[in-house]
Amino acid sequence: MAEKPPAQIRVRRHPERGHYDAETVYPILDAGAVCHVGFIRDGHPVVLPTLHVRVDDHLYLHGAVASGLLKAMAKGVPVCVTVTELDGLVLARSVYNHSLNYRSVVVFGQAYEVTHPDEKLRALRSLVEKVQPGRWADARQPNATELRATRVVAIRIESASAKVRSGPPIDEAEDMDLPVWAGVIPVRAVRGEPEPDPALPAGVEIPPYIASGSV
Amino acid sequence: MAEKPPAQIRVRRHPERGHYDAETVYPILDAGAVCHVGFIRDGHPVVLPTLHVRVDDHLYLHGAVASGLLKAMAKGVPVCVTVTELDGLVLARSVYNHSLNYRSVVVFGQAYEVTHPDEKLRALRSLVEKVQPGRWADARQPNATELRATRVVAIRIESASAKVRSGPPIDEAEDMDLPVWAGVIPVRAVRGEPEPDPALPAGVEIPPYIASGSV
Repeated sequence: MAEKPPAQIRVRRHPERGHYDAETVYPILDAGAVCHVGFIRDGHPVVLPTLHVRVDDHLYLHGAVASGLLKAMAKGVPVCVTVTELDGLVLARSVYNHSLNYRSVVVFGQAYEVTHPDEKLRALRSLVEKVQPGRWADARQPNATELRATRVVAIRIESASAKVRSGPPIDEAEDMDLPVWAGVIPVRAVRGEPEPDPALPAGVEIPPYIASGSV
Repeated sequence: MAEKPPAQIRVRRHPERGHYDAETVYPILDAGAVCHVGFIRDGHPVVLPTLHVRVDDHLYLHGAVASGLLKAMAKGVPVCVTVTELDGLVLARSVYNHSLNYRSVVVFGQAYEVTHPDEKLRALRSLVEKVQPGRWADARQPNATELRATRVVAIRIESASAKVRSGPPIDEAEDMDLPVWAGVIPVRAVRGEPEPDPALPAGVEIPPYIASGSV
């Protein structure tokens, strides 16, 4: 990744919250379960959610070959991939200073279609393993028809910008003694108890790699 | 909202997952803590996360008057607002049929600046009350300077498309007897224990309206 961000991705509001280094950007990309991809269709911006995974300095997305989003991306249109993790509700003494704690990353780039079978399979494995580590080896592997029906696109992360807010509310000096409770309500995504498919044959137990934990 | 969606927002992949009625769309917009706004800047798509609130058939967003996103929106550029709630990880017997359970809504429109003081104040109150019901009346109210420093934009929800997947994995008939566990791992956002601002004066207790619960 470039150390110096191009103007296009510089964090303008609250520049002190901006970060452009892989050490900040990559963990946020990895923590986000889904991303939002923006592209232009018929002159209009379109934003769609999808699963992503980062492998080294590339982001991989996938979908059906018939997917309009994937088709457009395979053609190399400019895209913006944004990942946001909400960490807390920041309640200040004043309405004005209410805020959210969050980590977000914006990646600008052009996607290209991944056609090499090894890279395509590696990307698909990484997507599955991101959602549930240990899953790829356990599930029935994709066959040639399924691989042909799936498109994988990659975006090289040449530069990206992260924006992070954390910590307590920041109120005006003259508000600090108001008798108003202030603080942070943390927010996080959690996994619940696995719900077995009702059609599961008797005797198929939950494998050990599916443990409860954060998403 | 229009009952018949324009082609631009029709769900193309898995059309059976598409919904265009307010009864489906509004609760998803209301459940999402943040949205992702897409717009075009210098010919490139840009996607940024922000807080939103729905009041009747309008979405309201806000930010600093200096915010580039808000400035662009106040000028009436076309925008796409997308809200996504992840509900579960869908583990199928085959890698190919893995999926996610989710509810998402895409709203296309043009934003306009809210300048009427009553509508602006109502939008800000709705934004705060969405994050924490009961908060607006308790916190110090915005003064004239703070209101001038804040821009509010609105988007009329003329048409929107929701896409929803729920339920267990859908595997191929020939995979149903494989000895592979299949099912759904539910995912949800939860609020943790409130963390009081370390600078809070002694004796300011957590108000009753701040209870633990879903976001």
